[in-house]
Amino acid sequence: MMPNKQKISAPMLSVTDALAAILGHLPYTDTQTISLKPGLENLGPENVALGAILAEDLTAVLTLPPQAVSAMDGYAVRGVDVASMPASLTRIAESAAGHPWSGKISAGQAVRVFTGAAIPDGADTIVIQEDVDPVAEEDGAVITIRNAEPIGRYIRPAGLDVRAGEIILPVGSLLTSRAIGLAIAAGLTHAIISKKPRVGILSTGDELVEPGNMPGPGQIISSNASFLASFVTACGAEAVNLGIARDQPRAMLGAVRAANKLDLIVTTGGASVGTHDHIVRDLAAAAGTNGTDDAVISSGLNFWKIAMRPGKPLISGFVDGIPLIGLPGNPVSTAICALVFLGPALAHMCRGSVTTPSFDVALSVPLDANDQRQDYIRAVLENDDQGQSVRPAPRQDSSMMSVLAQANALIIRPPFEGARAAGDRVTVMLLPHLY
Amino acid sequence: MMPNKQKISAPMLSVTDALAAILGHLPYTDTQTISLKPGLENLGPENVALGAILAEDLTAVLTLPPQAVSAMDGYAVRGVDVASMPASLTRIAESAAGHPWSGKISAGQAVRVFTGAAIPDGADTIVIQEDVDPVAEEDGAVITIRNAEPIGRYIRPAGLDVRAGEIILPVGSLLTSRAIGLAIAAGLTHAIISKKPRVGILSTGDELVEPGNMPGPGQIISSNASFLASFVTACGAEAVNLGIARDQPRAMLGAVRAANKLDLIVTTGGASVGTHDHIVRDLAAAAGTNGTDDAVISSGLNFWKIAMRPGKPLISGFVDGIPLIGLPGNPVSTAICALVFLGPALAHMCRGSVTTPSFDVALSVPLDANDQRQDYIRAVLENDDQGQSVRPAPRQDSSMMSVLAQANALIIRPPFEGARAAGDRVTVMLLPHLY
Repeated sequence: MMPNKQKISAPMLSVTDALAAILGHLPYTDTQTISLKPGLENLGPENVALGAILAEDLTAVLTLPPQAVSAMDGYAVRGVDVASMPASLTRIAESAAGHPWSGKISAGQAVRVFTGAAIPDGADTIVIQEDVDPVAEEDGAVITIRNAEPIGRYIRPAGLDVRAGEIILPVGSLLTSRAIGLAIAAGLTHAIISKKPRVGILSTGDELVEPGNMPGPGQIISSNASFLASFVTACGAEAVNLGIARDQPRAMLGAVRAANKLDLIVTTGGASVGTHDHIVRDLAAAAGTNGTDDAVISSGLNFWKIAMRPGKPLISGFVDGIPLIGLPGNPVSTAICALVFLGPALAHMCRGSVTTPSFDVALSVPLDANDQRQDYIRAVLENDDQGQSVRPAPRQDSSMMSVLAQANALIIRPPFEGARAAGDRVTVMLLPHLY
Repeated sequence: MMPNKQKISAPMLSVTDALAAILGHLPYTDTQTISLKPGLENLGPENVALGAILAEDLTAVLTLPPQAVSAMDGYAVRGVDVASMPASLTRIAESAAGHPWSGKISAGQAVRVFTGAAIPDGADTIVIQEDVDPVAEEDGAVITIRNAEPIGRYIRPAGLDVRAGEIILPVGSLLTSRAIGLAIAAGLTHAIISKKPRVGILSTGDELVEPGNMPGPGQIISSNASFLASFVTACGAEAVNLGIARDQPRAMLGAVRAANKLDLIVTTGGASVGTHDHIVRDLAAAAGTNGTDDAVISSGLNFWKIAMRPGKPLISGFVDGIPLIGLPGNPVSTAICALVFLGPALAHMCRGSVTTPSFDVALSVPLDANDQRQDYIRAVLENDDQGQSVRPAPRQDSSMMSVLAQANALIIRPPFEGARAAGDRVTVMLLPHLY
């Protein structure tokens, strides 16, 4: 029996609670061993490490630096020999990066060193070359030292950066460029990562036509799928386009069941309380419940009003065991909910998390008091001579893609935040790079 | 004749001036027409639009919305019919997204509307369904309205978002997920973008061994190339690994000339004033100059000390007409210079720019006065109950990749900035997503 929509409650939920509920339902993807080494050419598509999330800790193989090295070009000397200035020493050898000198330094001796070069045994002090006259490039030369650094300064001790055996990147770490460089330097060549989630993207609505077609009366081009495919890709997941489901019972189920090996389903539209909306009823049907609230909820289906703006309706459920997140259909609501819920969901499925630091910035114009919904205000963070300020877009309609495209930040206003004057600070997050 | 290194000056230059000089030397890449439409499956690697930079303006084909539409579920009515409350009206039709009603509304009539539905001729006012009793789903039903919105409220006029013919994304725009969604909605299927620059990455140094080998005494694994290949990929360019050049004359030139169709060369190391450094002399040789300052500089070769920390030495030049940027060899210096110079250079070659907003945040610990160099302090931006604060990593050595990998922000201190106490605000930028 098909449940009647009125029987499925839509409680008002905070963003935090809704996100926690969604994440709690999501499984991890399988693990996969990948190479951290770039190929010989064309590193882009093959460089699968970039953007992946570690499924296991990465432990250093090597100690960095492997021995004490110089941080400067100059001379390695014994501190006791340069206790009073000027000092005359005899250059006896050279130690360069890749060409260490294996001897031991004695009284009155100096070894020419370059950045990254091993510090010879017996030396504990660096003289930078700007403090030496003349800079000698021949062994046996006598140099005059005008100033020496304190003992140990500009010497990088062994293990300053990394010690063999320590965890340098824990499970859940994002493989950024920096992380890959660190791992390679620490002697690693492979990593165990979480496989990319395969994300089926389904748009719903009788008004939608596919890109490339001219819309007729009352029609619009389906654009949420293009946004979501790009967003999911930017999140390091794999997007699978499931096309458009019409506003008919079981259309969503048909489209989803035609796809293979999905890890997650994302729908847009069809989640409002209008009579044309079928996603919730399809999910209830898929769960095989009798349509009562208790049965529906115990099947893992949730239909929430989230206390947020834009993006109130949100669905979380399962189709044949595959988790589904149902986003609202207005493009800006889709995009904000993708940022707030889908991004963290994809990271969570890969054992990671999204940590986008927020900060506070002075408003350039006043804002009215907020109501019970957390507000995500499209805005532009601007730098000028006076510093930074954030300017909310004058119109915040959830259909206005152009306003979102021109924003570089969101002002996040908690529920019931009071009115704010120009110059007051509000909480801001920057929009992610490829969002 | 090989110029003597002492003849090539290394003036101290500000970050701003050095960046302007580098960008001024760079050509644009060719243009390329690409599809904005995602394929049917596996959108990741094929979705070349994501992260590309427009080489020509994108102009809207369609007006959005194409006609006035409802922003809410409810009823479209005439404002004059709901001037006093309660009001009784007769539902005469339904207009849903994709199913517009083509008639005209008359006195005493209401048309059931859903979000995104066309507003019927004659209607100028929305009644949201929460203010109607009973919500009627049958034509001919009489409804009682308890409250109506002001005329025009919750009605999105035609062209609110986009007007056909207007530029929605100008040349130089980054194709983000939002931008792609907007372009698709506005009726576009293709865009003219700048081709990805092919970036040759060459590490230099006798101390380096390729990843996968065990370093011997005095050796370290070459990791800058892995960092840079990832960074360049994250910037939307194509990385070409040129391997390792040893500290010998013309080794750099040999490696570069063995590669095909490079748009840019990036080297690391070999740019200090130590005697083992050959990049500058190789560039001067490639320019065929007589080695004097004037001749070298007129060939486009610059060897700068940048007033920044980390990352003082920087080279800009040409090999056979291909621009070259020479970064310092310490991994953190490499990474900071990549962020400050290489990222903007790659965007510039694609007709775009990098705009990373900075903002100011309270310090969690004091900082000493800065010297003449702009300082990029590796730091962690933290949120807690009291708000945000930024904590500089206690050790800022330019060899410490682990410190950079754990940072999420840089504190940017201008030259000669005075001492700052805990709680004072300093300028901060967040590290980019895949940096």
